Amino acid sequence: MTRSWVEIPENSDFTLDNLPYGVFSTSSRPPRCGVAIGNLVLDLSVVTCLLRGIGGLDPSCFSKPALNEFMACPSSVWKATRERLMDLLREGGSRELRDDPVMASKAFVKLDTVKMHLPAVIPDYTDFYSSRDHAFNCGCMFRDPANALQPNWLHLPVGYHGRASTVFVSGTEIVRPRGQLQKDKGDPKKGSEYGPCKNLDFEMEIAFFVGGEPLRLGETITMDNVEDRIFGLVLMNDWSARDIQSWEYVPLGPFGSKNFATSISPWIVPYEALKPFTCETISRVQQDPEPLDYLKDPNYSSFDIDLTVSIQGQDMPQAEQVCRTNMRNLYWNIKQQLVHHTVTGCRMRPGDLLGTGTISGGEQDSLGSLLEMSWRGTRDVPLGSSGENRKFLKDFDKVIMRGKCQNKARSSLLAPLLKVIQRTSTWNKRYLQLTECHKLRLWGQDDFTLGSFTVIRFYYTH
Amino acid sequence: MTRSWVEIPENSDFTLDNLPYGVFSTSSRPPRCGVAIGNLVLDLSVVTCLLRGIGGLDPSCFSKPALNEFMACPSSVWKATRERLMDLLREGGSRELRDDPVMASKAFVKLDTVKMHLPAVIPDYTDFYSSRDHAFNCGCMFRDPANALQPNWLHLPVGYHGRASTVFVSGTEIVRPRGQLQKDKGDPKKGSEYGPCKNLDFEMEIAFFVGGEPLRLGETITMDNVEDRIFGLVLMNDWSARDIQSWEYVPLGPFGSKNFATSISPWIVPYEALKPFTCETISRVQQDPEPLDYLKDPNYSSFDIDLTVSIQGQDMPQAEQVCRTNMRNLYWNIKQQLVHHTVTGCRMRPGDLLGTGTISGGEQDSLGSLLEMSWRGTRDVPLGSSGENRKFLKDFDKVIMRGKCQNKARSSLLAPLLKVIQRTSTWNKRYLQLTECHKLRLWGQDDFTLGSFTVIRFYYTH
Repeated sequence: MTRSWVEIPENSDFTLDNLPYGVFSTSSRPPRCGVAIGNLVLDLSVVTCLLRGIGGLDPSCFSKPALNEFMACPSSVWKATRERLMDLLREGGSRELRDDPVMASKAFVKLDTVKMHLPAVIPDYTDFYSSRDHAFNCGCMFRDPANALQPNWLHLPVGYHGRASTVFVSGTEIVRPRGQLQKDKGDPKKGSEYGPCKNLDFEMEIAFFVGGEPLRLGETITMDNVEDRIFGLVLMNDWSARDIQSWEYVPLGPFGSKNFATSISPWIVPYEALKPFTCETISRVQQDPEPLDYLKDPNYSSFDIDLTVSIQGQDMPQAEQVCRTNMRNLYWNIKQQLVHHTVTGCRMRPGDLLGTGTISGGEQDSLGSLLEMSWRGTRDVPLGSSGENRKFLKDFDKVIMRGKCQNKARSSLLAPLLKVIQRTSTWNKRYLQLTECHKLRLWGQDDFTLGSFTVIRFYYTH
Repeated sequence: MTRSWVEIPENSDFTLDNLPYGVFSTSSRPPRCGVAIGNLVLDLSVVTCLLRGIGGLDPSCFSKPALNEFMACPSSVWKATRERLMDLLREGGSRELRDDPVMASKAFVKLDTVKMHLPAVIPDYTDFYSSRDHAFNCGCMFRDPANALQPNWLHLPVGYHGRASTVFVSGTEIVRPRGQLQKDKGDPKKGSEYGPCKNLDFEMEIAFFVGGEPLRLGETITMDNVEDRIFGLVLMNDWSARDIQSWEYVPLGPFGSKNFATSISPWIVPYEALKPFTCETISRVQQDPEPLDYLKDPNYSSFDIDLTVSIQGQDMPQAEQVCRTNMRNLYWNIKQQLVHHTVTGCRMRPGDLLGTGTISGGEQDSLGSLLEMSWRGTRDVPLGSSGENRKFLKDFDKVIMRGKCQNKARSSLLAPLLKVIQRTSTWNKRYLQLTECHKLRLWGQDDFTLGSFTVIRFYYTH
């Protein structure tokens, strides 16, 4: 583990081997880019003078309220920037920041005083379905074990386009969706009714951001250059309205049951940081069938990232763990997902977000969704020793997802906290207050709101 | 029909009752906003001084290379702007432009000298499936007539998220996609192979742009305010790789078979312009079943827009019509599509694009796709009297879609020309030339490429 001259507490997730990128704001200044280190954020917009000289990098990109411009640089620029930052923070490295107390006092901000934002403008969001156990479980619930996996599943990473406008940063409160529900579970011919989702679920996923130059029409990403395109990883919670989903999804896939909200962690762990945690997947090899040539990964592998999901009900003193899984439980890895995504010529842009799909293992306590844990709501899922149970999420539940990579030197990564609070579906609009509205500069010199990233606190009368 | 002091040829699509918005560039100046009138474009960036005084409008929005900022204004601003423009162009209206030859000489540009661009940055793109004939035909091809429509089809406008990054403006050349194809049509267990799509198809659709302020988390659009959110309409060709589609789409919907390209016409016809063409849909009423309350449209209707598709093969002297359909052939109208899209709380943003899905009528010559016309490639579709036939598209085919609204005064609208040329799938990269690359200013003062809209001309050796 690399030592930093910045104090890093014993169990900190933000070691120097991590150094994730994020977008943060403080009470005095609007959103800009930073990296997390120990209990601090290094404000990259303050240290631009120390980042000149990196070929291909215009350090003013870090003054922007999103990381897209930096993501658009070639991967060589990401690597050089990371090396420079590590050098500035490493014990025994460059002293340009360490020996400049004036700059350091402006550059370091306390982590517990910042507000985190979506780290990028997301031009497109795609979700895959790449855990064999998850796909098998879902197939068993709707078909029989012999036909659980569709014929195409082992031949291509099945995916669907998601809704970019409702990807939110962790901490954003989510409203229980209302929509169409099948009236009679046994007889679809009886039609539907309108009401609040009763089967609200989470999905434990990893997601990654695409970077590099935008592709041109018809251009594809191939296995030999795909790693240059993966900027970094976050955790993702693909909130799902299971009852809305089962009524709407045939034949064009899930829609309203997914597009009301998707949450991601705010700190993007660079791909470089994860490479030491490369490991075999749960399948070890892909041989029955072998993938087609364009999809074959000569270094077929995943990352050893320990993933947990905990739930804290409104009256519970603490969160209780319901799932422990691992990113190695993917059959199709993220390289294969990105290669397949472009095979027909689909254009990628910096900031595009791809989710792996729910990551489930083979054990009851490694299932990445309540759908699987409760087996479609037929059995209770105990919340630890709290005395509470769940089949699906209740109002005011917090869902907390954590990811960790550890080696003997206890280098840990990916400590996002996905905290989401459900509110009752009946809220009185008169008390709806907009606490913040961050307008992104998207056009020339004028303010132009393409999308506001808002945090809304709801107040109720009932 | 309103008369203009600008000369408008007899059969012009760009009458004063149309006045569609678009984004265009000339050899001397980069992309900016305009309206089409007769054989001219009125450059709105030149006449900003004449647009001051419209409450809520900052006319500098028209100097931007996309219409999103204007779309983000409330519908009252769109209406006031349209009225002002009509007043400036109408015979007997304001003479401020007419009597200013210096401004007029800069403001009017010949339509045949401009290059058209995507009219907006598209934050999200969604495609629906709202023609009953089309859904029924597809269902018959894959199931039996009694079960052709899925149980949910008559209860909700089925839709799926599309890929925003590959929506292109008419004129963009499209490359035949390559991907996975099922090896044995009768036996999916035999797996897949990689190769060029053999069943390349078009889909005749209408699409509309969403406008107004961005929605907040959990906020929905309801039937009583939905019309304020519909900025205007274009034609859409939802290019489809049918063989890639049938292998990949179960269970999460079409993906690579769609996301390689989608083409739209460049001129957005304002919703206001279409209202006089309101008409009954082909179904007249929705009563078996009635839609749920949130989806009920008290003014259930569509627009009487005549739609034709023609194909011109490489060796054909002219294009031959293969389809004549009408926007009235939709079961779910565009208001219902937009309302349903937000019912679970999905956030819309100005510039969002929604497609209606293939619009087919009940006759053989009113089918909006080759899939239906050739009945899944089992019969030839003659191309007029040319002597040529098609089951699916061949390389170098041009697909031309036109839309027209006519009344007794021959007021016609929506004359987009969707010209797409397929090129052979084996192209030599050394001859790939990028003829134009328009960088959109998306961040602060610096150039920042979120996406380049490119026109690529391919050159071959073979």
